[in-house]
Amino acid sequence: LNLTELEILALDSPVNVSDGHARQSLTEAQSAVVREFPELFESASRQPFGELERRAQSAFLSALGQHRAPVCEGRVFSTYSSSVGMEIVARCLAEELSEVALIHPTFDNIPDLLKARGLSLRPVEEQALEGDPEHAFAGRPQAVFITTPNNPTGFVLSADALRRVAGWCAEHRAVLCLDTSFRGFDPTAQYDTYAILEEAATEYVVIEDTGKLWPMAELKLGFVVHSRNCRLGLQEAVSDVLLSVSPFVLLVVERLAEDAAAGGLDDLHDLIARNRAILESSLSSTSAHLPDRGRVSVARVGLAEGMSAASLWRALRKVNVDALPCGSFHWADQAEGDGFLRVALARDEPVVQKAAEAVGGVIELVRREGDRVAAWSGAVRSA
Amino acid sequence: LNLTELEILALDSPVNVSDGHARQSLTEAQSAVVREFPELFESASRQPFGELERRAQSAFLSALGQHRAPVCEGRVFSTYSSSVGMEIVARCLAEELSEVALIHPTFDNIPDLLKARGLSLRPVEEQALEGDPEHAFAGRPQAVFITTPNNPTGFVLSADALRRVAGWCAEHRAVLCLDTSFRGFDPTAQYDTYAILEEAATEYVVIEDTGKLWPMAELKLGFVVHSRNCRLGLQEAVSDVLLSVSPFVLLVVERLAEDAAAGGLDDLHDLIARNRAILESSLSSTSAHLPDRGRVSVARVGLAEGMSAASLWRALRKVNVDALPCGSFHWADQAEGDGFLRVALARDEPVVQKAAEAVGGVIELVRREGDRVAAWSGAVRSA
Repeated sequence: LNLTELEILALDSPVNVSDGHARQSLTEAQSAVVREFPELFESASRQPFGELERRAQSAFLSALGQHRAPVCEGRVFSTYSSSVGMEIVARCLAEELSEVALIHPTFDNIPDLLKARGLSLRPVEEQALEGDPEHAFAGRPQAVFITTPNNPTGFVLSADALRRVAGWCAEHRAVLCLDTSFRGFDPTAQYDTYAILEEAATEYVVIEDTGKLWPMAELKLGFVVHSRNCRLGLQEAVSDVLLSVSPFVLLVVERLAEDAAAGGLDDLHDLIARNRAILESSLSSTSAHLPDRGRVSVARVGLAEGMSAASLWRALRKVNVDALPCGSFHWADQAEGDGFLRVALARDEPVVQKAAEAVGGVIELVRREGDRVAAWSGAVRSA
Repeated sequence: LNLTELEILALDSPVNVSDGHARQSLTEAQSAVVREFPELFESASRQPFGELERRAQSAFLSALGQHRAPVCEGRVFSTYSSSVGMEIVARCLAEELSEVALIHPTFDNIPDLLKARGLSLRPVEEQALEGDPEHAFAGRPQAVFITTPNNPTGFVLSADALRRVAGWCAEHRAVLCLDTSFRGFDPTAQYDTYAILEEAATEYVVIEDTGKLWPMAELKLGFVVHSRNCRLGLQEAVSDVLLSVSPFVLLVVERLAEDAAAGGLDDLHDLIARNRAILESSLSSTSAHLPDRGRVSVARVGLAEGMSAASLWRALRKVNVDALPCGSFHWADQAEGDGFLRVALARDEPVVQKAAEAVGGVIELVRREGDRVAAWSGAVRSA
């Protein structure tokens, strides 16, 4: 099963900390937007589509610091979701080239969609991306694909590193692809990506996502942004999949983005930080820990040597808690990922509390079980 | 430009009869559903997702006569739209086989998405599908893809013909694919497709669509239904693109389907019939006519010999009317399609009235212009 199939198993789980979608309760401001749905629907029907689309794109991207995003130049396509955007980008890459350097680890639908188009992938570790591009891209890939902030690690490509990567791509005529779906959670990822990309004259495509931030029952948009010099046939590929997104959803996104900019984003950051602290404290007396410094809405639990996330996942399911084992994130080396369990944090605190207690408890149980088995087999051997 | 790119040009057109999406005003019952949006949103958040999904699928499919659709067997995947479903089916076909017999003409994103996956296509004319499958599929395709009702012709594959095609596919181990997006408009397409497919033990996949019927600002779903013996890796391909559709949209679709079954569908049929009559009467004193008997929400205008739909489209744009030239529907022979202009009928009557007058007027203008040019060149020649 891929990661999403595991997450689908958890959709109706009593304690679902499996998927990275926003499932916390609405804030008061978000509830007000929902109460306004009928008026927004009506209002959307009376406005030109092009205007609604530009306003939603501008409101969202500028709320996340992306002031130089080329909205008014018409270089932002809206899609039903970031994954629909990803599917379109994968198609277009495969029409133009054959080899992609892809960040490792990352959510497995990215390598899966690229591979399904026949592209060959080379893993690049996060830390290599912060170093010398000549070293990271020694294999001379024709495209570079980076998820930043990354899922599940929360790793953020720094502005300096992006500048180096963008320069390398421009020099070597490689297409630079970014998936910034988790950008909203981490202020360190909200420097103006487009200012850097445009300055470097890089051939780029960026996938942005409104879908991770707000608990809006999957009413969301993906945006596919591209450079003026981008060789990808995005317009045709987009138009093969959709005529337009929903004008109603555009208006909802605009409202939510306005609220985000006016303080909603800070509240969200606080919720995620509190939930991360809950998880961390539940692990304090166990052999596990939180290895990452990121601020995204998922956290990796690093397990002690020899403990398997796949086994832990099964054990947790028996007590009705659904988390996500990280094996498949490590698409080039699944075993490496089995030392990590991912816990979603975009939930109400009591949900994370329950999940965290179960995770801590089961980890201890498994360790003691392991100790007992070790003691027992030691006893058998010495008998 | 492909057909959708032409339709995108028309999105903010003063008189848009270009795309086949529903753009008429809401009925009173539909307005009531919109007024209920906040409650539906809240209600969706309190119900198990699996249950919401089954209920929406059942309500929609049974409203259209598809009582044997395998909803409870879990053989219906929900997607953001029928085109996202189409993209998934195209991927899965390409993973298993290489040659597809495809109905001709049909909307061009179907051949485009299939070709983008590397599949080879063989055109099959509508009338051939009603005849002997041995003749229609003499090339022994590994899959057969039929849009029924077809877009833009409204052609409906009869139950008897479906039985023959399904039998042929079962016998020759071909995968039968149906796109029934326009099914809701035509009662003759609402016989129970699944009863026939299941009886014939055909390996099948059917794409259903809630998106063409209701003017819901693109709040919609696609369904990908498949046989128990279907070789396609649909589950994995679906999960590469989405975790789940919106629980809110599921509830909206359920409500709209209930209203459709309780008379809403009849009202819709009446609107489309009235609009078709408006268009037909505006052509009565012209050289053009409506060649099709179908009841779908688009109508083809058949032009007189020598008149070009592409030219007519350009002339209509000058008077702010956007229709759709049919060249690209005829994906294997574009010139053949240039004798037809498609006019969308899922609009309020005044919009169709304006469009119909413009179409009739411009057709006459072009004909007289043609006569004048003929007379003039005749005069020049005889001088």
